[in-house]
Amino acid sequence: MKALLRERGKLTVRDVSKPLPLDDEALVKVIKAGICSTDLELAKGYMEFEGILGHEFVGRVVKTRESTWAGKRVVGSINLTCGKCPFCLEGMEKHCQSRKVLGISGKHGAFAEFLTLPLANLYPLPSNISDSTAVFIEPLAASLEIFEQVKIEQNDSVLVLGDGKLGLLIAQVMKLKTNNVSCLGKYERKLEILKEKGIKTYSSRRETGGMFDVLVEATGNERGLQEALSWIKPKGKIVLKSTFKGFARVDISKIVVDEIQLIGSRCGPFQKAIDVLSKELIEVDRMIDGDFPLEKAQEALVMAQKPGIMKILISP
Amino acid sequence: MKALLRERGKLTVRDVSKPLPLDDEALVKVIKAGICSTDLELAKGYMEFEGILGHEFVGRVVKTRESTWAGKRVVGSINLTCGKCPFCLEGMEKHCQSRKVLGISGKHGAFAEFLTLPLANLYPLPSNISDSTAVFIEPLAASLEIFEQVKIEQNDSVLVLGDGKLGLLIAQVMKLKTNNVSCLGKYERKLEILKEKGIKTYSSRRETGGMFDVLVEATGNERGLQEALSWIKPKGKIVLKSTFKGFARVDISKIVVDEIQLIGSRCGPFQKAIDVLSKELIEVDRMIDGDFPLEKAQEALVMAQKPGIMKILISP
Repeated sequence: MKALLRERGKLTVRDVSKPLPLDDEALVKVIKAGICSTDLELAKGYMEFEGILGHEFVGRVVKTRESTWAGKRVVGSINLTCGKCPFCLEGMEKHCQSRKVLGISGKHGAFAEFLTLPLANLYPLPSNISDSTAVFIEPLAASLEIFEQVKIEQNDSVLVLGDGKLGLLIAQVMKLKTNNVSCLGKYERKLEILKEKGIKTYSSRRETGGMFDVLVEATGNERGLQEALSWIKPKGKIVLKSTFKGFARVDISKIVVDEIQLIGSRCGPFQKAIDVLSKELIEVDRMIDGDFPLEKAQEALVMAQKPGIMKILISP
Repeated sequence: MKALLRERGKLTVRDVSKPLPLDDEALVKVIKAGICSTDLELAKGYMEFEGILGHEFVGRVVKTRESTWAGKRVVGSINLTCGKCPFCLEGMEKHCQSRKVLGISGKHGAFAEFLTLPLANLYPLPSNISDSTAVFIEPLAASLEIFEQVKIEQNDSVLVLGDGKLGLLIAQVMKLKTNNVSCLGKYERKLEILKEKGIKTYSSRRETGGMFDVLVEATGNERGLQEALSWIKPKGKIVLKSTFKGFARVDISKIVVDEIQLIGSRCGPFQKAIDVLSKELIEVDRMIDGDFPLEKAQEALVMAQKPGIMKILISP
């Protein structure tokens, strides 16, 4: 089968052998996959990943021991867990000490004709979610994870920092809980999607004014966190959604005196993301800026890196 | 009256005029006051404080418009609030935008024969709490603030970093909720107090082992926070109790991937601290390392700065 690999630090599309599912796994034919900022970081060497990239996907089960799954259109959660380590036993499977992560760590990913995943990771899709829409389930689940961690009240003021792919999803998700959502971004055509959902948008730091109950940092840079600290109310919550590469200088004195909470947030609940998309509560289709065949996956990654570009899909 | 002042950067004990209580205030004769690490920082120039230092105290009401308060032995919460700003109106009085803080910011403190405080800040003391014990109510309230912010479960493992005055109180307070409390400190005679309360103690970093559900940072230095991050479980909570002077380098990637929460924590509930001391649940008397007359307040501060010294009292 064809796949996009990172090998010895270089990206290539080439033929590789089709993966063999383990006993508890399904073989899934990938229909579409999405490029995420983490993929771009991995391509550049983050976590020294080697193998097939890609973790946002929709596919069809083509082989499995459990016949009820055969032919099902599915998405899949990305953490493969051991079930035995202390964190698994405490119900924190996604923090499994020896986890593999699809297309991110120790497990070949979705930029390929086929992938394998444990059945426990798969979620069947309702027919009213299109293939292109389904690719957003993984990042949407990550956005919904915020609700698992922070209680957002109806009148809470929320500012999302960043209008990247994740920022646009998070802003819409926050709007499900409170009418007082705004987003600070850079690109008019992206912010337009949010405006139509009743979300306030700012394109300059000076416009934001005031202070917020909750800030979600989704800019992916250190400055975002520093700004968040200057715009948060006392006792406010700052949710960190960006995969920073390492350290940031943080004003600890401000955090203590104002009793701020800083909350790291990663992957989230797939079924809830499926439900939200099934009810058409979130606009994702207008976030698609391109759809490339797998042969042109390298071009797809180049395009995905251009400033202001939203979701790029790969169709094997 | 006599008072310890910081004036143009220098500390002096000298006569000053007795403060005049405002309409809503009481004049309080200070019985005893305690020296806190924040006082030592203020003495060195933190926040450029000028005036009478001291915010941990017990005293007796000697003048007030409301006769029911006359003669009462009291302690007092330290934030003087405006009642009108957005934070006061949202019930976050202690974060009042124009607050004054007793002996810390804009309000003369307790290292004096008399102080004034609004009646709303005062708490009458039950007779079974001695004067020396009562001085611990302010820092004990700050320790109890953690329960207002973090739900500690019965089986949670908690590590307190630091055996300073605040660390010793926090470790004992944590023990009220879970049997699995340990403290990493430096001084055998301090850790002994905790051991007798059934708290595990470590005097070297290598001994701690394992990972913890909750870490409380009370070392007052940047390294404490970095260590906390290496010892915290996924989804764990790190409570920041030290008044850091500024910035620290923080591993943001770790916070996001492991979904750690960092929680700043400051002043706390006075009445709960009074109740806890009244029930003799916390050992504080063995934490007193000296009691100086006000005339010798400068010597008291010198002693309080010595490594390993616990609470130093000043008796006007």
